[in-house]
Amino acid sequence: MEFRKLIEENSNEAWVKYLPNLSIDCVVFGFHDAVLKVLLIKIKEEKLWGLPGGYVLKTENLNEAASRILLERTGAANIYLQQFRVFSDLNRSEGFFENFDDAIWNKQRFLSIGFYALVDYSQVNLIVDEISDACEWTAIDELPKLMMDHGTIFEKALVALRKQLNYKPIGYNLLPEKFTMPELQKLYEIILGKKLNRGNFYRKMLRYDILIKLNEIRKGGAHKAPDLYQFDIEKYHLALKNGFNEGW
Amino acid sequence: MEFRKLIEENSNEAWVKYLPNLSIDCVVFGFHDAVLKVLLIKIKEEKLWGLPGGYVLKTENLNEAASRILLERTGAANIYLQQFRVFSDLNRSEGFFENFDDAIWNKQRFLSIGFYALVDYSQVNLIVDEISDACEWTAIDELPKLMMDHGTIFEKALVALRKQLNYKPIGYNLLPEKFTMPELQKLYEIILGKKLNRGNFYRKMLRYDILIKLNEIRKGGAHKAPDLYQFDIEKYHLALKNGFNEGW
Repeated sequence: MEFRKLIEENSNEAWVKYLPNLSIDCVVFGFHDAVLKVLLIKIKEEKLWGLPGGYVLKTENLNEAASRILLERTGAANIYLQQFRVFSDLNRSEGFFENFDDAIWNKQRFLSIGFYALVDYSQVNLIVDEISDACEWTAIDELPKLMMDHGTIFEKALVALRKQLNYKPIGYNLLPEKFTMPELQKLYEIILGKKLNRGNFYRKMLRYDILIKLNEIRKGGAHKAPDLYQFDIEKYHLALKNGFNEGW
Repeated sequence: MEFRKLIEENSNEAWVKYLPNLSIDCVVFGFHDAVLKVLLIKIKEEKLWGLPGGYVLKTENLNEAASRILLERTGAANIYLQQFRVFSDLNRSEGFFENFDDAIWNKQRFLSIGFYALVDYSQVNLIVDEISDACEWTAIDELPKLMMDHGTIFEKALVALRKQLNYKPIGYNLLPEKFTMPELQKLYEIILGKKLNRGNFYRKMLRYDILIKLNEIRKGGAHKAPDLYQFDIEKYHLALKNGFNEGW
């Protein structure tokens, strides 16, 4: 169906179902072949890329709403989700719906609650819905111009994710079950956008006490085969809940 | 005026002026005589204590709304404010307005955006408004039971403030212009709820490079007079903007 017609037809139902003036935008990070990627959608006809998002049902809290939005878009349940900021500028939609009737749902002022999510790349089935004609992973250093304030939302999500590295574990939803220390370090380096000292990384990571060293090595490489690790799930989740005892 | 009558009379105007279903609650921290305190208000007749809060004008962004709410309550402008979380549980108001008509503004579902603020205790003039009959500073370890989910909002604000200690400076709005290193350490200890090692504190704080050591000492004490410091405002604000280069 044509984009305009779809927006107009869904408007009445939206007014009934959702909390007004509130939206959710999700910055979904995935890690694949040593590249950090973000999930983008392309709005039909508009030729504009943006973040996947949606609205909050009158019967939902925010975590439920964000989980449902991502489930509809990726087919993945139990995604690690974190709200990080509300975006409330008056002009944030930049007249995106200016040619529509003033009573149309989408034309209202929306404050958008930003969530970031970390997903297992391999468990995701991207789903194109009726207002989008593409849903794709894009490397974070190759992002196109994003619609509205979605570029800002992405940047703030990356800052929030970087902060999280200092007080919570990361990697369980981004790496395969078994991984090497260089692979884990690479993930941190890509999120942080800088190189880390190998020895310091190794020591600090072991101090977090969330890894199990396996009696296995990665086979098939030309060089010395590196040790394999996996996360100690119990300790990992405890640290996710309570935070590392670092800093002050 | 009676509480019920006030709520009912203000309802129509609220529907016109404010964004529906959204409120702001502020956890305002002040530091005085080595005690960390929080600003509480008491709702008229209800005999319940809560956090100062308000609604978002249709013409405001969230920072403007929070600043206005605090200005109305404390008379203080340019307060350091930080949004930290949205509280969205369906039952968060616990039937607070259950005896009111369903169309009344205050009886709607509200998602509340939590801000914490750090204020200069001496620059504040607490103001009782028409729905409250007290507005007071209370030590954080002597808080009464708070209404609705305000106890949770306070706890999450304290967690957010503790996290901020690891990547941003703190103290400018809480300490007098000139202070001693033990006074600064005491502020950190009270926020963190634990003792810190004196030498480590001193080294880490100097590494942040935000302090100026003055050629003055505190006079009048019986013991060795301690050195006085003040914040290097330029470096302090730069660190507030960019964060410390600590952690990973």
